[in-house]
Amino acid sequence: MARRTGRRPGNPGTREAILDAARAAFAERGFDAASIRAIAGTAGVDPALVHHYFGSKDQLFLAAMQAPVDPRELLPTVLAGDPGGIGERLVRTFLAVWDSPAGTAGVALLRSAVSNEWTARLLREFVVTQVLRRVLNHLDVAPAELPLRGSLVATQLIGLAMIRYVVRLEPVASAAPETLVASVGPTIQRYITGDLPPQRDSAGS
Amino acid sequence: MARRTGRRPGNPGTREAILDAARAAFAERGFDAASIRAIAGTAGVDPALVHHYFGSKDQLFLAAMQAPVDPRELLPTVLAGDPGGIGERLVRTFLAVWDSPAGTAGVALLRSAVSNEWTARLLREFVVTQVLRRVLNHLDVAPAELPLRGSLVATQLIGLAMIRYVVRLEPVASAAPETLVASVGPTIQRYITGDLPPQRDSAGS
Repeated sequence: MARRTGRRPGNPGTREAILDAARAAFAERGFDAASIRAIAGTAGVDPALVHHYFGSKDQLFLAAMQAPVDPRELLPTVLAGDPGGIGERLVRTFLAVWDSPAGTAGVALLRSAVSNEWTARLLREFVVTQVLRRVLNHLDVAPAELPLRGSLVATQLIGLAMIRYVVRLEPVASAAPETLVASVGPTIQRYITGDLPPQRDSAGS
Repeated sequence: MARRTGRRPGNPGTREAILDAARAAFAERGFDAASIRAIAGTAGVDPALVHHYFGSKDQLFLAAMQAPVDPRELLPTVLAGDPGGIGERLVRTFLAVWDSPAGTAGVALLRSAVSNEWTARLLREFVVTQVLRRVLNHLDVAPAELPLRGSLVATQLIGLAMIRYVVRLEPVASAAPETLVASVGPTIQRYITGDLPPQRDSAGS
């Protein structure tokens, strides 16, 4: 595809136009189906400019989400070491991010996801493609079980964030991280590597 | 205290004035410290009128929260039977309420709690005084451990509601209730009756 230099390459609104188009694409079509080319088309710019500004599709997604941290930088710590300790390491890393200044952005994201269906979809795509898929792909887990295991992990982690940082219910709100690691870690471990029931959906299939 | 018949007994705004005063009192002072007498004073009515309209302090709180169900009607089902099955029964009852038409009100309450500090405080008081305290008081659990156990249960249940009904992450969003009962029930059971770590707060005490 030929470079089309006439399409707003230096416009100061270009970056925002790309991010708006990316948010729409990721929310509507999901991370996997969204393409840099289509996003560039919506924003009226050359795909090369999207790569120039944001790098990979993963990085564009993080920018579109205004994600305060890149899960790819944190996951090696979670995944390294004994597979039987992954639950505790995931909770420890999760709390370290949320207890840091980045946690403020996390609370804002959570508030937005709850009030806005569009942000909820982005958050869902983010959790699945940037965090859970990476963690679970690394482990020796049956592929058919990955979605249920991943979304169970999400129930416990999003609830921990809600109670500690949004609703601020004591003593979880002020507990030392290691108290929560020891309490919640085994839950995450069971959801990732433990026995789960055979899966059925509401229709009974 | 003498009945003061001059204070707006029949005003159609009286009910709302009492509920407004009640929400303020429960959010600011907490359920235990809020008194019917003080709420009546704020609303400019006789305390007897509050009892006449709403009954007990518990019932006034449920009305102020616009709670779609009364936990006292559901808890006997949860508490009856084998203590080792309380985790599964609590999840089953929780899902039955949220999967019913009452769940719509629950989602609205959750959305409001996330965007509004005042509703978050009401929700916290509701969860603690109307649900967790009743469940845990019924069980043979050391009183000093009740707050941590209760707020851990809250992390898992609020996260389950968030993922199933708000973020709608699959397969949890469409899973048959019994799949979730079998998956999440043991987590709740461990938080209620299992071994927990010694508790420390962030200050390291």
